[in-house]
Amino acid sequence: MATKTAPTLADVEAARARIAGKGVRMTPLYGSETFGRMTGREVHLKAETLQRTGSFKIRGATNKLESLTDAERKAGVVAASAGNHGQLAAAQASVEETGATFIHPFEDMDVIAGQGTIGLELAEQLPELGTVVIPIGGGGLSAGIALALRAVQPDVRIVGVQAAACAPFAGSTELGYTIAEGIAVKHPGELTSRLLDDLLETVVTVTDEEISKAIVLLMERAKLVVEGAGAASIAALLAGRVPGEGPVAAILSGGNIDPTLLIQVMRHGLTLAGRYLVVRTRVPDRPGELLKLLSLFADEHANVVSIEHHREGMDTPVTASEVEATLLTRDQEHCASILDAMERSGYPVDRLN
Amino acid sequence: MATKTAPTLADVEAARARIAGKGVRMTPLYGSETFGRMTGREVHLKAETLQRTGSFKIRGATNKLESLTDAERKAGVVAASAGNHGQLAAAQASVEETGATFIHPFEDMDVIAGQGTIGLELAEQLPELGTVVIPIGGGGLSAGIALALRAVQPDVRIVGVQAAACAPFAGSTELGYTIAEGIAVKHPGELTSRLLDDLLETVVTVTDEEISKAIVLLMERAKLVVEGAGAASIAALLAGRVPGEGPVAAILSGGNIDPTLLIQVMRHGLTLAGRYLVVRTRVPDRPGELLKLLSLFADEHANVVSIEHHREGMDTPVTASEVEATLLTRDQEHCASILDAMERSGYPVDRLN
Repeated sequence: MATKTAPTLADVEAARARIAGKGVRMTPLYGSETFGRMTGREVHLKAETLQRTGSFKIRGATNKLESLTDAERKAGVVAASAGNHGQLAAAQASVEETGATFIHPFEDMDVIAGQGTIGLELAEQLPELGTVVIPIGGGGLSAGIALALRAVQPDVRIVGVQAAACAPFAGSTELGYTIAEGIAVKHPGELTSRLLDDLLETVVTVTDEEISKAIVLLMERAKLVVEGAGAASIAALLAGRVPGEGPVAAILSGGNIDPTLLIQVMRHGLTLAGRYLVVRTRVPDRPGELLKLLSLFADEHANVVSIEHHREGMDTPVTASEVEATLLTRDQEHCASILDAMERSGYPVDRLN
Repeated sequence: MATKTAPTLADVEAARARIAGKGVRMTPLYGSETFGRMTGREVHLKAETLQRTGSFKIRGATNKLESLTDAERKAGVVAASAGNHGQLAAAQASVEETGATFIHPFEDMDVIAGQGTIGLELAEQLPELGTVVIPIGGGGLSAGIALALRAVQPDVRIVGVQAAACAPFAGSTELGYTIAEGIAVKHPGELTSRLLDDLLETVVTVTDEEISKAIVLLMERAKLVVEGAGAASIAALLAGRVPGEGPVAAILSGGNIDPTLLIQVMRHGLTLAGRYLVVRTRVPDRPGELLKLLSLFADEHANVVSIEHHREGMDTPVTASEVEATLLTRDQEHCASILDAMERSGYPVDRLN
């Protein structure tokens, strides 16, 4: 008997049966009119963000745990996620100390077969699926989905997405900071690399700026909280980097984003959309002058978030004060109209965002 | 034949068939372990946030439109949502001018029957449902769900929720500002009032503070973006105001929240959770003193969001500068430890959040 070199469709089907009773959900697939309009093709969202624990990972982990022998289970297990190298070293040390079983986040047949259950669900939910876009970290998610889909829908086009800051599958060897930390893996696995070489049509990259925009749009339009790695597939679609036409499914792999980071991303997204204006100007150092500026903002229907008023500034003459105002605005046109009104009234204008 | 005074189960079933082909979705129901743990009972989320357009309203509206005669449809329709009185007056004026049909957001048998389709879905998705919690605005959503559920699961307990700032069904006649603008309706309808008197076990109220916490938890734990009115049901559950035990379904009615408001709510929620610390202190007016304070923050592993440094302040001696620091922190304990370290180093401490 030859050694098995990849999980088979039968393995994925067995995984599906194994994890079904263990709290793993079949996640919904939504058609999105918004993203359809923006990309000119039929777009469906596979919301693994709504999976138990907020990400796809529980599929592979549960399949692995349920596949262990009694002895292995008794010795305990240690696991770490693909996006965290520090965790990964600590896990290895713990294994050496305790004799526990180490569960690799992607270089594992059972883990890959578990992630592959998403592919079986997709094929049932959208038989006319033409293209699927999958974020790639270590490659376990993409390899699993790809081999399951390829088996049941041989003609489907499979596209991988990586963050430009860390894209080994797309030929980059840098490991930069990226908002998509869930897919920031410098060394993809040997097993997953071999599978993906064979199964993927192409791998495209997206910038952190594109990912940020996708996160904000998914919140505003689809009402879903999606982490950086999870939004990469939509970012690739919106950037026009996904080849082909016709129905496409974007895998939203997870929603575990730090809320303070999410606030930054949202503020940035709203700034790009012209929903914030931060402007620096000067007012004469006389009573009533700040009030005059605030009246101008009120006349322009701009909502003041904050005003900073400094008597001293590097370029501020001794008879003037520097003012930095943050305003809530409707759109870029509204921003332009406020700046215009300020200039017409003789205020120097320095837009800071 | 007697005049019909309320939609029947048959009307709701007809509505379901009528709207199914028109893009209205059957929305998912999720069991939530987080909210289960927090409330000590089995909690399910009915995610109308994931309905097309981001709210339940399209159910009633579609059923109404599909029930119009050809002549009515030709004359055009005008609609307004329950939460917006200004819209409501403008709509009436437009009807008088154009002869269009006015679709009332809740005082309408077809609209109520349309919203009732949620009740039929719930009964199928969770046959063991014991209690359902529904936000009440004009009463169309709650009346529809209640009459459908009562017909197919007679023993179910139906609880309405209103925002404390505007709760006519709970006996309040004030119309205050509330974050739950979608259910801020001062005058509930005659038809819906009569139905709800008969169908609801009780109506409870929740404060804006409770709603804000629910919004943040739904984002962090369930990965769902939910508007104020939509989060009211979870707020009531978390506040312990929903009577009974056993499985309960919370209707998340919609997710259309302004993103700038959402950022404010998130920041507020994170502050309550100790994830932000805003502190004012003083440093001697000498080179290197600000650096010393920043080193203290670094030693305490606090991430600096912003530093404001003022040479002049009301209570600031002439030899000192006032500093206001905003820090990212882990939890309230972390905040306490930072404040403690500052005091031990002789800094005066004034926590601002």
